[in-house]
Amino acid sequence: MEIAFIGLGNMGGPMAANLLKAGHALTVFDLDAHAVDAAVRAGATAAGSPRDAAARGAVVITMLPAAQHVRAVYLGDDGVLAGARAGATLIDCSTIDPGTVRAVADAAAQRGFPLADAPVSGGTGGAQAGTLTFMVGAEGALFERIRPVLLDMGRNVVHCGGTGTGQIAKICNNLLLGISMMGVSEAMALGAALGIDPAVLAGIINTSTGRCWSSDTYNPYPGVSDTAPAARGYAGGFAANLMLKDLGLATEAARHAHQPVWMGALAQQLYQSMNQQGLGTLDFSACVKLYEAQPA
Amino acid sequence: MEIAFIGLGNMGGPMAANLLKAGHALTVFDLDAHAVDAAVRAGATAAGSPRDAAARGAVVITMLPAAQHVRAVYLGDDGVLAGARAGATLIDCSTIDPGTVRAVADAAAQRGFPLADAPVSGGTGGAQAGTLTFMVGAEGALFERIRPVLLDMGRNVVHCGGTGTGQIAKICNNLLLGISMMGVSEAMALGAALGIDPAVLAGIINTSTGRCWSSDTYNPYPGVSDTAPAARGYAGGFAANLMLKDLGLATEAARHAHQPVWMGALAQQLYQSMNQQGLGTLDFSACVKLYEAQPA
Amino acid sequence: MEIAFIGLGNMGGPMAANLLKAGHALTVFDLDAHAVDAAVRAGATAAGSPRDAAARGAVVITMLPAAQHVRAVYLGDDGVLAGARAGATLIDCSTIDPGTVRAVADAAAQRGFPLADAPVSGGTGGAQAGTLTFMVGAEGALFERIRPVLLDMGRNVVHCGGTGTGQIAKICNNLLLGISMMGVSEAMALGAALGIDPAVLAGIINTSTGRCWSSDTYNPYPGVSDTAPAARGYAGGFAANLMLKDLGLATEAARHAHQPVWMGALAQQLYQSMNQQGLGTLDFSACVKLYEAQPA
Amino acid sequence: MEIAFIGLGNMGGPMAANLLKAGHALTVFDLDAHAVDAAVRAGATAAGSPRDAAARGAVVITMLPAAQHVRAVYLGDDGVLAGARAGATLIDCSTIDPGTVRAVADAAAQRGFPLADAPVSGGTGGAQAGTLTFMVGAEGALFERIRPVLLDMGRNVVHCGGTGTGQIAKICNNLLLGISMMGVSEAMALGAALGIDPAVLAGIINTSTGRCWSSDTYNPYPGVSDTAPAARGYAGGFAANLMLKDLGLATEAARHAHQPVWMGALAQQLYQSMNQQGLGTLDFSACVKLYEAQPA
Repeated sequence: MEIAFIGLGNMGGPMAANLLKAGHALTVFDLDAHAVDAAVRAGATAAGSPRDAAARGAVVITMLPAAQHVRAVYLGDDGVLAGARAGATLIDCSTIDPGTVRAVADAAAQRGFPLADAPVSGGTGGAQAGTLTFMVGAEGALFERIRPVLLDMGRNVVHCGGTGTGQIAKICNNLLLGISMMGVSEAMALGAALGIDPAVLAGIINTSTGRCWSSDTYNPYPGVSDTAPAARGYAGGFAANLMLKDLGLATEAARHAHQPVWMGALAQQLYQSMNQQGLGTLDFSACVKLYEAQPA
Repeated sequence: MEIAFIGLGNMGGPMAANLLKAGHALTVFDLDAHAVDAAVRAGATAAGSPRDAAARGAVVITMLPAAQHVRAVYLGDDGVLAGARAGATLIDCSTIDPGTVRAVADAAAQRGFPLADAPVSGGTGGAQAGTLTFMVGAEGALFERIRPVLLDMGRNVVHCGGTGTGQIAKICNNLLLGISMMGVSEAMALGAALGIDPAVLAGIINTSTGRCWSSDTYNPYPGVSDTAPAARGYAGGFAANLMLKDLGLATEAARHAHQPVWMGALAQQLYQSMNQQGLGTLDFSACVKLYEAQPA
Repeated sequence: MEIAFIGLGNMGGPMAANLLKAGHALTVFDLDAHAVDAAVRAGATAAGSPRDAAARGAVVITMLPAAQHVRAVYLGDDGVLAGARAGATLIDCSTIDPGTVRAVADAAAQRGFPLADAPVSGGTGGAQAGTLTFMVGAEGALFERIRPVLLDMGRNVVHCGGTGTGQIAKICNNLLLGISMMGVSEAMALGAALGIDPAVLAGIINTSTGRCWSSDTYNPYPGVSDTAPAARGYAGGFAANLMLKDLGLATEAARHAHQPVWMGALAQQLYQSMNQQGLGTLDFSACVKLYEAQPA
Repeated sequence: MEIAFIGLGNMGGPMAANLLKAGHALTVFDLDAHAVDAAVRAGATAAGSPRDAAARGAVVITMLPAAQHVRAVYLGDDGVLAGARAGATLIDCSTIDPGTVRAVADAAAQRGFPLADAPVSGGTGGAQAGTLTFMVGAEGALFERIRPVLLDMGRNVVHCGGTGTGQIAKICNNLLLGISMMGVSEAMALGAALGIDPAVLAGIINTSTGRCWSSDTYNPYPGVSDTAPAARGYAGGFAANLMLKDLGLATEAARHAHQPVWMGALAQQLYQSMNQQGLGTLDFSACVKLYEAQPA
């Protein structure tokens, strides 16, 4: 299939590579010439603008850092909507606020283009291995149509509902994840300070009502898990600064929806503190460091 | 075995009944004559004081509301330590602070009595069905010795470490549980307000990184689970006021241990707000109501 | 002086009226025809666009609801920068984020127009009475030049530093105000629940280290002050929803500055809860209601 | 007048010295022989127990660290109630929970002794200079009777209501103070990070609605005040660990009163974090350090 792919960063780059491996004809665009060169070496064709790229795809996929980039790439004079050919399908894999998704989708619909939001989870590891999860906001028929191409980049493709619900699902899951990880850190650090063996405590929690992914799969306390980032100095994984970004999206979305998010807002400030203390590039489970006494 | 059982409340009553069913000879004490009568009708013998009860047990089990009662029942002039016979083993199943456990255990040790703390989870339903989980703080040999009698009242008996670690495990698990349930409520309420179907959102969370017991087994949002308290008006279950008590124990223990517990302290205030608004006797998952607009 | 005034809402309308009273020649613009009519009846001339209005002022003053309006009014095709005459001075009295101020000021500077940010405090009452306080971000010479015209609308004109510092001062003051009012509510409600006479407690606080404007001038507890909004059912004053907006600006600014604002983020969620419970149009001191038991 | 004084610590020592200077005949008790020696050298008589001391005072004054000491000193076998002579008046200047005050006052009343609670503010400096403020819980006639002797140790003696209200007033004031200081730190640190001059910002706040003692008298930001602890490396003043203690009293009192104290509970955790980071012996205004990036 002819696919236009815009945004070749840490996530988009390997996603595009997987589409090439699956045999698709890819036209790519990115502001970073190095990223474009790498894709071209892997078999892609370079375009001079989002508009030019979009003109050469039956499907246009975008993977961009933030809402402002999504607006510019779709709505700008040299943007996707200005160039997309009749019948094209648009898929935005960026993680942004649901409001921007709906605004861009409305603009696309006016030109006759259906747009699905399909933010991912799984990180750069999942992007490279092709094991991402896509949370898709799209009407039913559109969802079925784009499902195969997403499966060329990931393992799970989940239908969340109409346009924008992919973002909502991701924001809400990550809101809870940010809270849970902070809660596990708090409970583990308290237990250790009170004198229970951390590994024993984790074992009890993991078979009890405190059980959660942050505890049983990704336990932040050093020495509890051999496979979690805590076992490798919190390198790799999902950076605290990315969790901070997602909690920012969640509290902003809550503000627009007139919903209080007490726990999420507090967690956001704690990840903000990590960021200020220079811990933001570590895996987000390094938030357990906020509960440690500093060396004198 | 001859067992003394002190404290025949909502939890202790059915626990004692299960010991009788298992064939033990029970001597009981409680300030509430009705509770004592019920146990006597089921085959127990009534004692006039904790001291008298303790005098007739190879094992003394206590199940009391709070630390002050534990101190009084063990250390008072008519208390357990004044009456227990040589060689007796003491098991306190109350949920109290680890500091009190250690103080009482020290006093017991001075008189030659080993004491284990064995707080439970599973609620009144688990007490009646004999499916409680016991979190046991006891040296290894003591743990092995009391394990059989605890299995007559429950299904899981977990060894947490030395004296006091049973309480630490329970406090830390419930600290995390109180945070997780509030986090799930926040994420579900936000998602619903933003327009995703709550059941779909729960399904996504439950297969993703936000997965936790509070979401997959006990989801607080109405209409998501058929078996959770949310499906029956938040009746039964684990009362918000009991979660409030446990978070009070956790934040107090944290204060003594010089540990910050930002998330737990905020969660405590939110359950306190439930209490003030008259929601404290509902299941703790009714905290989702804090995120609902009040009817005008 | 010839002045263009854009934005005739609850604040801008009376501010414009005071400029007319002071003898200035006013050209006005607003999307709301009723607001324009009222200004015209008071002696102003109506313009068809921000551009047209700007073309007729030696000074252009804007008073708009949010950053998006400020961007549109200054930077749009029919905006102020497109119409302002050579030598014009621009003053934005809106309360918005410092980042937008700087972006708009930069664009203005490129066309040769100096722009000062001058957000106000004092509410609609102060706007009508001409007793507003202006917090001005402007280089020294510009500050001196605009000071007289601001004094025609207010009583205090404070120089905060260079461009954007007017917004910073307002945001930081209101961040603290939002926290203080919540703190006073919490302390007063706790004292009353514990059994001290609220008026006695307020008197002690007001002569002690807890003393603050929220307590000594604007005490939220019913029956303590005769002149505060609490004495008139929390009508008028500074609406909770406006405090919510300002705390949103503060936490967003903090996010961009990599600063944690734990207390402000929590206060924001509490005002958000007021908003959800239908209390958002009351004076912000009605936050004391969050600490009251609901009638059964 | 014959006065018994029990508790000669950092506060009690200088308070007793001031009573001696005022010409009273003092009998003292403390567990610390050095403290007793110092008082004896200044003219006091030493007693062997609280009971013996109480036997020699028309007024008995206690200044103790915590509730457990107050209970022991008044209610123990060798305690004040066991020794006080007929007609004696009891004054407890400790800062403790209102519940303990009432329990001890009830026990005293049963023996015929009126007891007033009179916690102080002003710190060790005020104790030495005799400029303390006393917040007194006592019925009217008792208040008038003890007022003169309190004025020998302080400058302000405030009547808060019946027994226990002195503690309530102190707890509520300090709850608000702990919140305000954290709020000022947050607002000042945010303003500085956003680029406004801190001294200018403080000046604006101090003449605006954010005005409070923590900002205008005790500003925590370095370089703003010449006389605040911030000007001398946060030495002296009111230690963060004492604020932490008082917030613990406030949140505990709130728990018993079924009141939420969101802001106070969060502030408590932030002071707890100071304690964990080794900052607890600094003045409490050093909380501004929680908002600073750590040196890399």
